[in-house]
Amino acid sequence: MIGYPNGKKSKVNMDKPINKGNLGQSLEDDLNRTNQFYAAHQIALVHKKPTPITVVEVDYPKRSAAKITKAFYQLPSTTDYNGVYNGKYIDFEAKQTKNKTRIPLSMIHKHQFEHLDAVLFHGGFSFLIIRFTSHQKTYLVDYLVLKSFLKETSLKSIPYEWIVENGHLIPYSYLKPCDYIEVLKQLL
Amino acid sequence: MIGYPNGKKSKVNMDKPINKGNLGQSLEDDLNRTNQFYAAHQIALVHKKPTPITVVEVDYPKRSAAKITKAFYQLPSTTDYNGVYNGKYIDFEAKQTKNKTRIPLSMIHKHQFEHLDAVLFHGGFSFLIIRFTSHQKTYLVDYLVLKSFLKETSLKSIPYEWIVENGHLIPYSYLKPCDYIEVLKQLL
Repeated sequence: MIGYPNGKKSKVNMDKPINKGNLGQSLEDDLNRTNQFYAAHQIALVHKKPTPITVVEVDYPKRSAAKITKAFYQLPSTTDYNGVYNGKYIDFEAKQTKNKTRIPLSMIHKHQFEHLDAVLFHGGFSFLIIRFTSHQKTYLVDYLVLKSFLKETSLKSIPYEWIVENGHLIPYSYLKPCDYIEVLKQLL
Repeated sequence: MIGYPNGKKSKVNMDKPINKGNLGQSLEDDLNRTNQFYAAHQIALVHKKPTPITVVEVDYPKRSAAKITKAFYQLPSTTDYNGVYNGKYIDFEAKQTKNKTRIPLSMIHKHQFEHLDAVLFHGGFSFLIIRFTSHQKTYLVDYLVLKSFLKETSLKSIPYEWIVENGHLIPYSYLKPCDYIEVLKQLL
């Protein structure tokens, strides 16, 4: 974890004006930083899965250093994040949008919806983390709640207003820029 | 899943002489096939994580087809497999060896041991799946049991005999070539 050999450096950082809820960083960066904090403080164990890549050609200039020279990105068949919190399996996908009024459902692949369904079936907890960068707000949306909504609607996107009403605002702090476990503490 | 439009094809395959417990396939292939069976039959939801790769250079010949032209393999910081069975978070590493008498501990990285420890701490179930190809046997080793053994020994490998005594033989079948859930049913 981040170490501050003298208190001053920490203080200087904390006093910097911070663009709360966004920080100009990506949601992925914020989640990685938060998950590192959770791991170091034994709060939860959650990792981002590596991006799946199909490797076609590899060079072996030295035995120890394989260099991939031809490869392609694959479509993910699962969500990006999973792990364990308090004995419970948790699984989620994280998306951010600049759109002010809605997030398109097309941002989540069919396979990922099927995966979120399967997690529920097997007794895990699945959810989405959605950041509206223009509002500087990040919400946790329980997938079970979203599922009911999607059954009843023909919309191809989730309205921001619906998320504000049915989701859970994720608190921001300097060390935990996307502190979704705070929300899970209430929900689980 | 595998579909057999007419019964015959299935029968022909089933009647082939099968090298039980090994099949000439890799443990990874067997686990992928087993996990696909579990998913299709809603027995468990377990995925192999993609191999982590650092991408250095990407070509965009077409907008839709990014081609990675320079990349490197990373050391994994977690285990290869995790998922959910019966509401429980499960997490494991799978290794095979040609060695007849032991499996070297060096096959499992320090970060992976730390990860297996962290899984236990957070209430998940962590284990190893170890295949001895020369014996055509695959064992599930509860990490908690292995941990006690490792505390008491100065060995740099796990003896085959110890695994036979303290591990659990994983049954083989054509559709579930590494049916570790059968073992978990007893343990969990």
